[in-house]
Amino acid sequence: MATTGRSACPLNMSLELIGDRWTLLILRDMVFNDRRHFRELLANSKESIASNVLASRLQALTDAGIVTKESHDGHKQKIVYSLTDRGVELLPAMIQLGAWGARHTPAVASIGLWFEIASDAGPGVWQELMDELRARHRLHAPADPDLEPAFSRLSAEFRDVRARRQASHS
Amino acid sequence: MATTGRSACPLNMSLELIGDRWTLLILRDMVFNDRRHFRELLANSKESIASNVLASRLQALTDAGIVTKESHDGHKQKIVYSLTDRGVELLPAMIQLGAWGARHTPAVASIGLWFEIASDAGPGVWQELMDELRARHRLHAPADPDLEPAFSRLSAEFRDVRARRQASHS
Repeated sequence: MATTGRSACPLNMSLELIGDRWTLLILRDMVFNDRRHFRELLANSKESIASNVLASRLQALTDAGIVTKESHDGHKQKIVYSLTDRGVELLPAMIQLGAWGARHTPAVASIGLWFEIASDAGPGVWQELMDELRARHRLHAPADPDLEPAFSRLSAEFRDVRARRQASHS
Repeated sequence: MATTGRSACPLNMSLELIGDRWTLLILRDMVFNDRRHFRELLANSKESIASNVLASRLQALTDAGIVTKESHDGHKQKIVYSLTDRGVELLPAMIQLGAWGARHTPAVASIGLWFEIASDAGPGVWQELMDELRARHRLHAPADPDLEPAFSRLSAEFRDVRARRQASHS
Protein backbone atom coordinates (compact mmCIF):
# COMPACT_ATOMS: atom_id res chain seq x y z
CA MET A 1 0.00 0.00 0.00
CA ALA A 2 1.36 3.44 -0.84
CA THR A 3 2.45 5.70 1.97
CA THR A 4 0.03 8.50 2.58
CA GLY A 5 -0.65 11.48 4.70
CA ARG A 6 -2.75 10.31 7.66
CA SER A 7 -6.16 11.26 6.34
CA ALA A 8 -8.91 9.74 8.45
CA CYS A 9 -11.57 10.23 5.79
CA PRO A 10 -13.71 7.08 6.07
CA LEU A 11 -13.48 6.41 2.34
CA ASN A 12 -9.69 6.68 2.54
CA MET A 13 -9.63 4.39 5.57
CA SER A 14 -11.69 1.80 3.66
CA LEU A 15 -9.35 2.01 0.70
CA GLU A 16 -6.30 1.64 2.92
CA LEU A 17 -7.73 -1.68 4.10
CA ILE A 18 -9.33 -3.09 0.97
CA GLY A 19 -8.33 -0.72 -1.82
CA ASP A 20 -6.38 -3.08 -3.99
CA ARG A 21 -8.13 -5.22 -6.50
CA TRP A 22 -6.81 -8.59 -5.33
CA THR A 23 -8.28 -8.07 -1.89
CA LEU A 24 -11.76 -7.44 -3.24
CA LEU A 25 -11.47 -10.34 -5.71
CA ILE A 26 -10.62 -12.73 -2.86
CA LEU A 27 -13.60 -11.41 -0.88
CA ARG A 28 -15.79 -11.78 -3.98
CA ASP A 29 -14.86 -15.48 -4.22
CA MET A 30 -15.62 -15.99 -0.52
CA VAL A 31 -18.94 -14.11 -0.69
CA PHE A 32 -20.39 -15.12 -4.04
CA ASN A 33 -18.63 -18.41 -4.81
CA ASP A 34 -18.43 -19.78 -1.26
CA ARG A 35 -14.70 -20.54 -1.44
CA ARG A 36 -13.26 -21.01 2.03
CA HIS A 37 -9.98 -22.88 1.51
CA PHE A 38 -6.66 -21.58 0.25
CA ARG A 39 -6.53 -24.27 -2.42
CA GLU A 40 -9.98 -23.41 -3.85
CA LEU A 41 -9.24 -19.69 -3.79
CA LEU A 42 -6.02 -20.35 -5.68
CA ALA A 43 -7.07 -23.04 -8.18
CA ASN A 44 -10.44 -21.56 -9.14
CA SER A 45 -9.32 -17.96 -9.41
CA LYS A 46 -10.63 -16.56 -12.68
CA GLU A 47 -7.94 -13.93 -12.54
CA SER A 48 -5.14 -16.47 -11.88
CA ILE A 49 -4.03 -14.96 -8.60
CA ALA A 50 -0.47 -15.89 -7.62
CA SER A 51 0.00 -18.05 -4.56
CA ASN A 52 2.18 -15.51 -2.70
CA VAL A 53 -0.27 -12.68 -3.42
CA LEU A 54 -3.18 -14.77 -2.14
CA ALA A 55 -1.25 -15.66 1.02
CA SER A 56 -0.25 -12.07 1.77
CA ARG A 57 -3.73 -10.69 1.14
CA LEU A 58 -5.39 -13.36 3.31
CA GLN A 59 -2.93 -12.50 6.07
CA ALA A 60 -3.73 -8.78 5.74
CA LEU A 61 -7.47 -9.52 5.76
CA THR A 62 -7.02 -11.63 8.89
CA ASP A 63 -4.95 -8.90 10.57
CA ALA A 64 -7.65 -6.36 9.72
CA GLY A 65 -10.37 -8.49 11.30
CA ILE A 66 -12.24 -8.89 8.00
CA VAL A 67 -11.58 -12.63 7.78
CA THR A 68 -10.80 -15.24 10.42
CA LYS A 69 -8.98 -18.50 9.90
CA GLU A 70 -9.51 -21.69 11.80
CA SER A 71 -7.85 -25.02 11.29
CA HIS A 72 -9.89 -28.18 11.57
CA ASP A 73 -8.25 -30.90 13.66
CA GLY A 74 -5.02 -28.95 13.63
CA HIS A 75 -4.42 -29.85 9.96
CA LYS A 76 -2.77 -27.02 8.08
CA GLN A 77 -4.42 -28.22 4.86
CA LYS A 78 -7.84 -27.89 6.43
CA ILE A 79 -7.68 -24.25 7.35
CA VAL A 80 -11.08 -22.63 6.74
CA TYR A 81 -11.39 -18.91 6.12
CA SER A 82 -14.57 -17.20 7.27
CA LEU A 83 -15.93 -13.69 6.99
CA THR A 84 -16.40 -11.67 10.14
CA ASP A 85 -19.24 -9.15 10.41
CA ARG A 86 -16.78 -6.57 9.16
CA GLY A 87 -16.23 -8.67 6.03
CA VAL A 88 -19.91 -9.48 5.51
CA GLU A 89 -20.77 -5.77 5.62
CA LEU A 90 -18.71 -5.14 2.48
CA LEU A 91 -21.50 -6.83 0.49
CA PRO A 92 -23.41 -3.65 -0.48
CA ALA A 93 -20.21 -1.99 -1.73
CA MET A 94 -19.32 -5.09 -3.75
CA ILE A 95 -22.81 -5.25 -5.27
CA GLN A 96 -22.58 -1.57 -6.25
CA LEU A 97 -19.14 -1.99 -7.80
CA GLY A 98 -20.31 -5.09 -9.69
CA ALA A 99 -23.46 -3.37 -10.94
CA TRP A 100 -21.39 -0.41 -12.12
CA GLY A 101 -19.08 -2.80 -13.97
CA ALA A 102 -22.10 -4.48 -15.54
CA ARG A 103 -23.41 -1.15 -16.85
CA HIS A 104 -20.16 0.54 -17.81
CA THR A 105 -17.63 -2.09 -18.89
CA PRO A 106 -17.69 -4.95 -21.39
CA ALA A 107 -18.32 -7.47 -18.58
CA VAL A 108 -19.87 -10.91 -19.04
CA ALA A 109 -23.54 -10.17 -19.56
CA SER A 110 -24.93 -13.01 -17.46
CA ILE A 111 -22.91 -12.26 -14.30
CA GLY A 112 -23.58 -8.59 -14.90
CA LEU A 113 -27.28 -9.30 -14.91
CA TRP A 114 -26.94 -10.94 -11.47
CA PHE A 115 -25.27 -7.82 -10.08
CA GLU A 116 -27.88 -5.53 -11.61
CA ILE A 117 -30.72 -7.59 -10.13
CA ALA A 118 -28.96 -7.63 -6.76
CA SER A 119 -28.40 -3.87 -6.93
CA ASP A 120 -32.01 -3.14 -7.90
CA ALA A 121 -33.25 -5.40 -5.09
CA GLY A 122 -32.20 -2.67 -2.64
CA PRO A 123 -31.06 -2.35 1.00
CA GLY A 124 -33.70 -4.66 2.50
CA VAL A 125 -32.53 -7.59 0.39
CA TRP A 126 -28.85 -6.73 1.00
CA GLN A 127 -29.58 -7.07 4.73
CA GLU A 128 -31.10 -10.51 4.13
CA LEU A 129 -28.10 -11.55 2.04
CA MET A 130 -25.76 -10.38 4.80
CA ASP A 131 -27.74 -12.31 7.43
CA GLU A 132 -27.44 -15.42 5.29
CA LEU A 133 -23.71 -14.91 4.89
CA ARG A 134 -23.35 -14.43 8.65
CA ALA A 135 -25.14 -17.73 9.26
CA ARG A 136 -23.06 -19.54 6.66
CA HIS A 137 -19.79 -18.21 7.99
CA ARG A 138 -20.66 -18.78 11.62
CA LEU A 139 -21.54 -22.37 10.87
CA HIS A 140 -18.32 -22.88 8.92
CA ALA A 141 -20.56 -24.77 6.55
CA PRO A 142 -21.06 -24.48 2.81
CA ALA A 143 -24.13 -22.74 1.48
CA ASP A 144 -27.39 -24.49 2.32
CA PRO A 145 -30.08 -23.36 -0.15
CA ASP A 146 -32.85 -24.22 2.30
CA LEU A 147 -31.45 -21.72 4.77
CA GLU A 148 -30.82 -19.00 2.21
CA PRO A 149 -34.04 -17.57 0.84
CA ALA A 150 -32.57 -14.25 -0.32
CA PHE A 151 -29.66 -15.77 -2.25
CA SER A 152 -32.03 -18.39 -3.71
CA ARG A 153 -34.63 -15.77 -4.61
CA LEU A 154 -32.07 -13.64 -6.45
CA SER A 155 -30.74 -16.70 -8.27
CA ALA A 156 -34.25 -17.68 -9.34
CA GLU A 157 -34.96 -14.15 -10.56
CA PHE A 158 -31.64 -14.16 -12.41
CA ARG A 159 -32.47 -17.45 -14.19
CA ASP A 160 -35.94 -16.15 -15.07
CA VAL A 161 -34.75 -12.89 -16.55
CA ARG A 162 -31.94 -14.61 -18.44
CA ALA A 163 -34.32 -17.21 -19.87
CA ARG A 164 -36.78 -14.51 -20.98
CA ARG A 165 -33.98 -12.53 -22.61
CA GLN A 166 -32.68 -15.60 -24.40
CA ALA A 167 -36.21 -16.46 -25.62
CA SER A 168 -36.75 -12.93 -26.95
CA HIS A 169 -33.44 -13.07 -28.83
CA SER A 170 -34.09 -16.41 -30.55
CA MET B 1 -2.24 -2.21 -12.64
CA ALA B 2 -1.21 -5.85 -12.23
CA THR B 3 -1.45 -8.13 -15.24
CA THR B 4 -4.32 -10.55 -14.96
CA GLY B 5 -6.07 -13.33 -16.72
CA ARG B 6 -8.82 -11.81 -18.80
CA SER B 7 -11.72 -12.36 -16.45
CA ALA B 8 -14.79 -10.44 -17.55
CA CYS B 9 -16.47 -10.62 -14.16
CA PRO B 10 -18.14 -7.21 -13.77
CA LEU B 11 -16.57 -6.67 -10.35
CA ASN B 12 -13.14 -7.44 -11.77
CA MET B 13 -13.78 -5.10 -14.70
CA SER B 14 -14.72 -2.32 -12.29
CA LEU B 15 -11.59 -2.89 -10.27
CA GLU B 16 -9.41 -2.90 -13.38
CA LEU B 17 -10.69 0.61 -14.09
CA ILE B 18 -10.95 2.14 -10.64
CA GLY B 19 -9.40 -0.41 -8.27
CA ASP B 20 -6.53 1.61 -6.93
CA ARG B 21 -7.07 3.93 -4.04
CA TRP B 22 -5.76 7.11 -5.66
CA THR B 23 -8.34 6.88 -8.41
CA LEU B 24 -11.23 6.70 -5.97
CA LEU B 25 -9.75 9.47 -3.81
CA ILE B 26 -9.59 11.79 -6.82
CA LEU B 27 -13.18 10.94 -7.67
CA ARG B 28 -14.16 11.53 -4.03
CA ASP B 29 -12.71 15.06 -4.21
CA MET B 30 -14.57 15.75 -7.45
CA VAL B 31 -17.87 14.35 -6.14
CA PHE B 32 -17.98 15.45 -2.52
CA ASN B 33 -15.65 18.46 -2.45
CA ASP B 34 -16.45 19.89 -5.88
CA ARG B 35 -12.79 20.11 -6.99
CA ARG B 36 -12.55 20.46 -10.73
CA HIS B 37 -9.06 21.87 -11.39
CA PHE B 38 -5.72 20.09 -11.27
CA ARG B 39 -4.35 22.67 -8.84
CA GLU B 40 -7.21 22.25 -6.35
CA LEU B 41 -7.04 18.48 -6.56
CA LEU B 42 -3.32 18.66 -5.85
CA ALA B 43 -3.10 21.39 -3.21
CA ASN B 44 -6.13 20.36 -1.16
CA SER B 45 -5.49 16.63 -1.20
CA LYS B 46 -5.83 15.34 2.35
CA GLU B 47 -3.71 12.38 1.38
CA SER B 48 -0.97 14.53 -0.22
CA ILE B 49 -1.24 12.97 -3.66
CA ALA B 50 1.90 13.43 -5.77
CA SER B 51 1.61 15.57 -8.88
CA ASN B 52 2.68 12.81 -11.29
CA VAL B 53 0.25 10.32 -9.73
CA LEU B 54 -2.59 12.82 -10.02
CA ALA B 55 -1.73 13.51 -13.66
CA SER B 56 -1.53 9.84 -14.61
CA ARG B 57 -4.75 8.93 -12.82
CA LEU B 58 -6.66 11.85 -14.39
CA GLN B 59 -5.41 10.72 -17.78
CA ALA B 60 -6.54 7.14 -17.13
CA LEU B 61 -9.93 8.39 -15.92
CA THR B 62 -10.27 10.48 -19.07
CA ASP B 63 -9.27 7.54 -21.28
CA ALA B 64 -11.85 5.36 -19.52
CA GLY B 65 -14.63 7.89 -20.15
CA ILE B 66 -15.21 8.46 -16.44
CA VAL B 67 -14.02 12.06 -16.54
CA THR B 68 -13.81 14.61 -19.34
CA LYS B 69 -11.51 17.57 -19.55
CA GLU B 70 -12.19 20.86 -21.23
CA SER B 71 -10.06 23.92 -21.39
CA HIS B 72 -11.62 27.33 -21.05
CA ASP B 73 -10.41 29.85 -23.60
CA GLY B 74 -7.62 27.48 -24.60
CA HIS B 75 -5.76 28.22 -21.34
CA LYS B 76 -3.97 25.15 -20.06
CA GLN B 77 -4.27 26.48 -16.50
CA LYS B 78 -8.01 26.66 -16.85
CA ILE B 79 -8.68 23.05 -17.68
CA VAL B 80 -11.86 21.89 -15.95
CA TYR B 81 -12.44 18.24 -15.18
CA SER B 82 -16.03 17.00 -15.17
CA LEU B 83 -17.67 13.69 -14.36
CA THR B 84 -19.44 11.83 -17.14
CA ASP B 85 -22.52 9.70 -16.39
CA ARG B 86 -20.16 6.80 -15.96
CA GLY B 87 -18.32 8.73 -13.24
CA VAL B 88 -21.48 10.02 -11.56
CA GLU B 89 -22.82 6.46 -11.28
CA LEU B 90 -19.93 5.49 -9.00
CA LEU B 91 -21.64 7.50 -6.24
CA PRO B 92 -23.54 4.58 -4.61
CA ALA B 93 -20.36 2.45 -4.46
CA MET B 94 -18.44 5.36 -2.93
CA ILE B 95 -21.17 5.97 -0.34
CA GLN B 96 -21.14 2.27 0.60
CA LEU B 97 -17.35 2.20 0.91
CA GLY B 98 -17.39 5.37 3.00
CA ALA B 99 -20.16 4.07 5.27
CA TRP B 100 -18.23 0.82 5.76
CA GLY B 101 -15.13 2.82 6.68
CA ALA B 102 -17.20 4.87 9.13
CA ARG B 103 -18.44 1.73 10.88
CA HIS B 104 -15.32 -0.40 10.76
CA THR B 105 -12.25 1.81 10.85
CA PRO B 106 -11.07 4.60 13.16
CA ALA B 107 -12.25 7.24 10.68
CA VAL B 108 -13.08 10.83 11.54
CA ALA B 109 -16.45 10.58 13.26
CA SER B 110 -18.06 13.64 11.68
CA ILE B 111 -17.31 12.72 8.06
CA GLY B 112 -18.23 9.15 8.91
CA LEU B 113 -21.60 10.35 10.12
CA TRP B 114 -22.19 12.01 6.75
CA PHE B 115 -21.52 8.73 4.95
CA GLU B 116 -23.76 6.78 7.32
CA ILE B 117 -26.61 9.24 6.82
CA ALA B 118 -26.10 9.10 3.06
CA SER B 119 -26.02 5.30 3.10
CA ASP B 120 -29.17 5.05 5.25
CA ALA B 121 -30.95 7.53 2.97
CA GLY B 122 -31.18 4.75 0.37
CA PRO B 123 -31.36 4.36 -3.43
CA GLY B 124 -34.01 7.04 -4.02
CA VAL B 125 -31.81 9.74 -2.49
CA TRP B 126 -28.70 8.40 -4.26
CA GLN B 127 -30.57 8.92 -7.54
CA GLU B 128 -31.31 12.52 -6.56
CA LEU B 129 -27.69 13.11 -5.62
CA MET B 130 -26.59 11.70 -8.97
CA ASP B 131 -29.04 13.92 -10.83
CA GLU B 132 -27.63 16.91 -8.99
CA LEU B 133 -24.08 15.90 -9.84
CA ARG B 134 -25.07 15.47 -13.49
CA ALA B 135 -26.49 18.97 -13.55
CA ARG B 136 -23.44 20.45 -11.82
CA HIS B 137 -21.00 18.72 -14.14
CA ARG B 138 -22.94 19.48 -17.29
CA LEU B 139 -23.02 23.13 -16.40
CA HIS B 140 -19.29 23.18 -15.62
CA ALA B 141 -20.38 25.29 -12.69
CA PRO B 142 -19.65 25.01 -8.99
CA ALA B 143 -22.28 23.65 -6.67
CA ASP B 144 -25.39 25.81 -6.40
CA PRO B 145 -27.24 24.97 -3.17
CA ASP B 146 -30.54 26.25 -4.57
CA LEU B 147 -30.36 23.66 -7.31
CA GLU B 148 -29.28 20.84 -5.05
CA PRO B 149 -32.02 19.82 -2.64
CA ALA B 150 -30.70 16.31 -1.96
CA PHE B 151 -27.13 17.39 -1.15
CA SER B 152 -28.50 20.26 0.95
CA ARG B 153 -30.99 18.00 2.74
CA LEU B 154 -28.28 15.51 3.66
CA SER B 155 -26.02 18.31 4.86
CA ALA B 156 -28.80 19.73 7.02
CA GLU B 157 -29.52 16.29 8.48
CA PHE B 158 -25.82 15.82 9.11
CA ARG B 159 -25.55 19.14 10.99
CA ASP B 160 -28.67 18.29 13.01
CA VAL B 161 -27.50 14.86 14.09
CA ARG B 162 -24.02 16.14 14.86
CA ALA B 163 -25.42 19.00 16.97
CA ARG B 164 -27.69 16.64 18.89
CA ARG B 165 -24.80 14.27 19.57
CA GLN B 166 -22.57 17.10 20.73
CA ALA B 167 -25.33 18.39 23.02
CA SER B 168 -25.84 14.96 24.56
CA HIS B 169 -22.12 14.59 25.20
CA SER B 170 -21.71 17.94 26.94
